[in-house]
Amino acid sequence: MSAASAPLYRDAGAPVADRVRDLLSRMTLTEKVGQVNQRMYGWDAHERTPEGHRLTDAFRAEVAAFDGMGALYGLQRADPWSGVTFADGITAADAARVADSVQRHVMSSTRLGIPVLLVEEVPHGHQALDGTVLPVNLAVGATWDPDLYEAAAAGAAAELRARGGHVALVSALDLVRDPRWGRAEECFGEDPYLAARFTRALVRGMQGDGAAYAPDRAAVVLKHFAGQGATVGGRNSAATELGPRELHEIHLVAARAGVRAGAAGVMAAYNEYDGLPCAASRDLLTGLLRGRWGFTGLVMADGCALDRLVRLAGDPVAAGALALDAGTDLSLWDGCFPRLAEAVERGLVSEDALDTAVARVLTLKFRLGLFERPYVDEAAQQTSQQPELSERLARESVVLLSHDGPTLPLAEPSRIAVIGPNADALPQQLGDYTAPQRPGTGLTVLDGIRAVAPPGTEVAYARGCDLVGGDRGGVAEAVALAAGADTAVLVLGGSSAREADTRFDSNGAAVVASGAPAGMTCGEGVDLAELELPDGQLALLDAVAATGTPVVVVLVQGRPHAVPELSGRARAVLCAWYPGPWGGRAVADVLFGRAEPVGRLPVSVPRSAAQLPVFYNAKDHGYRGYVDQPATALYAFGHGLSYTTVEYGEPRLSRTQAPVGDPALTCTVAVTNTGARAVRETVQLYVRRVAGSSSWPRVRELRGFARIDLDPGELAEVVFVVDADTLASLDRALEYAVEPGEVLLETGPSSDRTRCARLTLTPAAAPG
Amino acid sequence: MSAASAPLYRDAGAPVADRVRDLLSRMTLTEKVGQVNQRMYGWDAHERTPEGHRLTDAFRAEVAAFDGMGALYGLQRADPWSGVTFADGITAADAARVADSVQRHVMSSTRLGIPVLLVEEVPHGHQALDGTVLPVNLAVGATWDPDLYEAAAAGAAAELRARGGHVALVSALDLVRDPRWGRAEECFGEDPYLAARFTRALVRGMQGDGAAYAPDRAAVVLKHFAGQGATVGGRNSAATELGPRELHEIHLVAARAGVRAGAAGVMAAYNEYDGLPCAASRDLLTGLLRGRWGFTGLVMADGCALDRLVRLAGDPVAAGALALDAGTDLSLWDGCFPRLAEAVERGLVSEDALDTAVARVLTLKFRLGLFERPYVDEAAQQTSQQPELSERLARESVVLLSHDGPTLPLAEPSRIAVIGPNADALPQQLGDYTAPQRPGTGLTVLDGIRAVAPPGTEVAYARGCDLVGGDRGGVAEAVALAAGADTAVLVLGGSSAREADTRFDSNGAAVVASGAPAGMTCGEGVDLAELELPDGQLALLDAVAATGTPVVVVLVQGRPHAVPELSGRARAVLCAWYPGPWGGRAVADVLFGRAEPVGRLPVSVPRSAAQLPVFYNAKDHGYRGYVDQPATALYAFGHGLSYTTVEYGEPRLSRTQAPVGDPALTCTVAVTNTGARAVRETVQLYVRRVAGSSSWPRVRELRGFARIDLDPGELAEVVFVVDADTLASLDRALEYAVEPGEVLLETGPSSDRTRCARLTLTPAAAPG
Repeated sequence: MSAASAPLYRDAGAPVADRVRDLLSRMTLTEKVGQVNQRMYGWDAHERTPEGHRLTDAFRAEVAAFDGMGALYGLQRADPWSGVTFADGITAADAARVADSVQRHVMSSTRLGIPVLLVEEVPHGHQALDGTVLPVNLAVGATWDPDLYEAAAAGAAAELRARGGHVALVSALDLVRDPRWGRAEECFGEDPYLAARFTRALVRGMQGDGAAYAPDRAAVVLKHFAGQGATVGGRNSAATELGPRELHEIHLVAARAGVRAGAAGVMAAYNEYDGLPCAASRDLLTGLLRGRWGFTGLVMADGCALDRLVRLAGDPVAAGALALDAGTDLSLWDGCFPRLAEAVERGLVSEDALDTAVARVLTLKFRLGLFERPYVDEAAQQTSQQPELSERLARESVVLLSHDGPTLPLAEPSRIAVIGPNADALPQQLGDYTAPQRPGTGLTVLDGIRAVAPPGTEVAYARGCDLVGGDRGGVAEAVALAAGADTAVLVLGGSSAREADTRFDSNGAAVVASGAPAGMTCGEGVDLAELELPDGQLALLDAVAATGTPVVVVLVQGRPHAVPELSGRARAVLCAWYPGPWGGRAVADVLFGRAEPVGRLPVSVPRSAAQLPVFYNAKDHGYRGYVDQPATALYAFGHGLSYTTVEYGEPRLSRTQAPVGDPALTCTVAVTNTGARAVRETVQLYVRRVAGSSSWPRVRELRGFARIDLDPGELAEVVFVVDADTLASLDRALEYAVEPGEVLLETGPSSDRTRCARLTLTPAAAPG
Repeated sequence: MSAASAPLYRDAGAPVADRVRDLLSRMTLTEKVGQVNQRMYGWDAHERTPEGHRLTDAFRAEVAAFDGMGALYGLQRADPWSGVTFADGITAADAARVADSVQRHVMSSTRLGIPVLLVEEVPHGHQALDGTVLPVNLAVGATWDPDLYEAAAAGAAAELRARGGHVALVSALDLVRDPRWGRAEECFGEDPYLAARFTRALVRGMQGDGAAYAPDRAAVVLKHFAGQGATVGGRNSAATELGPRELHEIHLVAARAGVRAGAAGVMAAYNEYDGLPCAASRDLLTGLLRGRWGFTGLVMADGCALDRLVRLAGDPVAAGALALDAGTDLSLWDGCFPRLAEAVERGLVSEDALDTAVARVLTLKFRLGLFERPYVDEAAQQTSQQPELSERLARESVVLLSHDGPTLPLAEPSRIAVIGPNADALPQQLGDYTAPQRPGTGLTVLDGIRAVAPPGTEVAYARGCDLVGGDRGGVAEAVALAAGADTAVLVLGGSSAREADTRFDSNGAAVVASGAPAGMTCGEGVDLAELELPDGQLALLDAVAATGTPVVVVLVQGRPHAVPELSGRARAVLCAWYPGPWGGRAVADVLFGRAEPVGRLPVSVPRSAAQLPVFYNAKDHGYRGYVDQPATALYAFGHGLSYTTVEYGEPRLSRTQAPVGDPALTCTVAVTNTGARAVRETVQLYVRRVAGSSSWPRVRELRGFARIDLDPGELAEVVFVVDADTLASLDRALEYAVEPGEVLLETGPSSDRTRCARLTLTPAAAPG
């Protein structure tokens, strides 16, 4: 057979659509089903041998069963759930070789030689041995720095590709609308605009521009579509009660941005929307996503999510048909999609529908260049800048919640007591979805303070109490330490650190049926009802504060805990989220003034669980508060102090009236550093609709922000371009439009400290 | 002019539709606007004189302004908001005369002589001086006795008509989906089926059967349509985030039942649904209510609700047009509908739309017979049985939450210490929306105990603490009393009692901006964040329990407070809700065993505000609970103990398989009184869909209940007829249908103690 007669799908020069069509026409029903199948846990595909790694019989059988494999999930995943450790897992040194051996087997042992997609969890760095851990998304959101995150996302993609991975699963679309949810840490915050900015940065960083993927770029599947942040009671993967407008205004904004940025895929969420789990919602996956938005990428199911549809559909075959018909293309671990051939044969779903899904999988493989370059590109290997980027993100994510003025930064040599269950526990500053770390990786807060403190500083440490529970056994030692110190740094908060004895659900979520997993208060499957810190931590704080030694509290946490009592007992409170391996250094840099606190809250800090929900962009009904406490946040969205003082002028508009058809104008605000230290200020722009909108308006909505550096005494004018995107709201048809009426353009340092200018949006002239 | 030439609309024998058409054709635009206007506070329409009452100039001016008056709200309303007291208000003795003078003026001073509708608040009895107060709806819901409530509703209607009122505004449609909401007391509970049963009873009781109203029946306007129980955070009149399915499955069920029963009207709720306040929602008021449901009655706006639409529409004229176009027929206190003539003239809404609304108002007036019998029918005056019915409802509403067995009933003469801020405060057992009571009306719990206790019983009383706050000043006295007693009855809970210095919003809701209204924890505008009892009450309980004297707690409250700590300190806990004026006697009857505790929870009792929402019919996602507390109720929906023991057999089905087209069968359960006292048992029937439904099922759904009396040792078989109504669920088109699949039919004494039988629903045969 001459080269000219090679099948069209092998022709790298042919249009992808033609190659897909050609390949599809050659496939059997079984081969097609194989392409939408992602049943196997990747860590079961290989095993360590004295000589290296070898492929398992189970893997070979899975490939043989469908004469191909659509995707393999988590070949390199390592964590307590998978049970993979440095003893048996794939390290950076082995990764490319193992990945290539998987690929080689799939391509060489199947009739058509279609490459497999290697899919990996990259929620905040690749969840693999030697994968560089980034701060969790909630910390990323606190940086308000999408450019920095884009760089880190690019680095994570390069790291993934250098190890043979192709597709990164990344949480991006969920919002913290209820901080009881254990996955709050995976969200960029509570705000749709902020999440959209980071989602766009994520897609650009990981995928790059253009239709094809460079060898150091990865395809992104955005998690989760849609509304998962709105589950009832903050309960993981439960129902939402969302209506269309709330879904569109709040929960779909980031997804729309990700789709516009070209995301390769989205993952259908566990939660139901309007009575149907997302993977079964044709309205969402086909009507909205493909129809209205024109999305051409892949919809992947969440782990075992299709198995849950058996309850609706009656059996696994019908459940697979239901999901495929709704618009799900690729399954994950479930027993439904592997039986799609039966579904087609029983007439439950058409082979055309299957072809459509297969085509989407194949298209991604072509776009990734896997037919031409199936193996790791050795030239793409490079020295990673990821640890530095991780530390920079951590440094920028630290939010100074409260401060009495003189206590921070800690400049002079002194005696510092570092106390608390999160002061010296590296796993507790990493967040969920992290692999075991090599000994010596990273710095705890205690490490960071020791590394950064001026010469002559005495640093002493006591743990003080357990992370959870009410034990007071360690309090006395901590009090003694604090009493003899000039400053006590109390490192409190939460932990998502899985342990070897944590019990897991079939999808990797922690199981909490029989009480708290030891030492955990956060992460997937670990929802909290009450948001206070555990009793032991509060008792420790009380006791240390009672010594009279000035207390600085550092919160290392994956959700905003309700800490109304902290400000009275602490001279300063810093929130560091889960800052990653190098977060201890980042925190210390801020404590000692080697870095300014530049983080801003991406989420409201509530006063209590009893006042939930709390977010700045609530509907504007002028609610006066509960009789026993306000309905507002303790610390508002956008809040974050610095070590200097900054004054904001009134915003000034280039015009105060604009037609809806062409509302371009500028909004300028003067910002002055009136203090004695340099500052990086995050100037925020909100829109508040006051009259004439087609649906009930929110209190305010973030629509822009700018970060500026100001030396002491320096004044800068920040100019926001205000255009149709800034001013658009959802009209009655749920389309974005600029509606006539009155709006306020508000600028300020946080959502609760804004000044405003009024803009009149005049109706379009009636057609003459 | 001969009698034969009298206008058609005056012809009592002509069809109502013809009369309406004829009358409309004679009306000016101003007269039409007058018919949809209900601007005036009724208490401003009259004033007390030494000789009696006289109409005010303001009233005459209002009638003159539109040459007619559609409706007059609250002529007889008396409460701290209206400021009406026995010093200046309308008593039962005056009422008919004053109402007739209003009617006479309207009919005689206007061109067309159209009678006015006299509209009154009758949330739990007519909110007027001498109106008989019933227990609040939440107590009514706890009776699980719609027949008794129907009788009480009929009595309330007769009382209203005898005083000249025509239209009763009654809360019925809201559900307690968040007990933080201050209006929880106005709901029949959390469950749509239970609320629907009581709503139907309400409409039947008040209106009677048939198209015309008997002289002792009143027209009912059901409050509120729709979804008001689902406002975000339990915040009064805020947004809901509801989607269509949640709205239909939960929040519309009672409204649908009320419409089917022939309710004269519904009140559009304050809250927004999918971005629009209900009064502006054409989808709800026209598409659903009139279109799909075929409702032909009246939609009334809530108080000042249309004024809120100015923010959307731009000005009051446009706001009125928006509401009219949506389907609102009659306004309340707002400044929008009175300007509808301008809206028609500006072309914002058609005169046809106005005519439609006017026709609905006129139709009700014709159906009430007001053109023929505009004045109070003296023959309809009768001795009211209402106090007896009120006390019966109260007695049946008492729920025994927990009990150690021997403590209750209190049979022998003994020393009883009656303690607590709700023990002897009549206003605090009445609930919101109540008029001032005549001295000597009713019995407090203390009064009731004194009245009922066996001869020789020593009853002593101490208040112990304030209802709100943490003051411990009265604890010592209470402890001393308890220490010397054989039993301490602690009467704790909440209060919705308005006081003269309570501040009010323009719609009568309490204003809580600047801290708690003195002494109130509940009622309209008084939402709570935390659900525990106030500190002072808990301290009192602690101290009294520490004496070792057996403690019986009686909760008098308008919402389910979270009381996880009570059961450990109290031998028995009774929930009496707000039982009305004679509720103290009802409670005492139960305490002393003169009545059995037959109430069952119409709402879940949560463990804390942190675990909200809590309801038995949550979506069935197998949620395992928060890491720090369960997600389930402390006391489940349907729970309620008795003074005996009852055993339930397995439910037995007359067939275990049924076609969806004809699913008639019976479900039988044997119930045995295994104890030593007679019991009235509420046998509950739940449906649980386990496979094959078109949307995600709930844990279980109440679909039937039966109340049976059993003597000691007696066994009874309860037979439930299971039919399409029992088994229907909302299909994909949001229509009720029996869907094929598997369901469990569950019977038991509460939602958390059921046994089940499996039923297979087979698909309809394919058309041959």
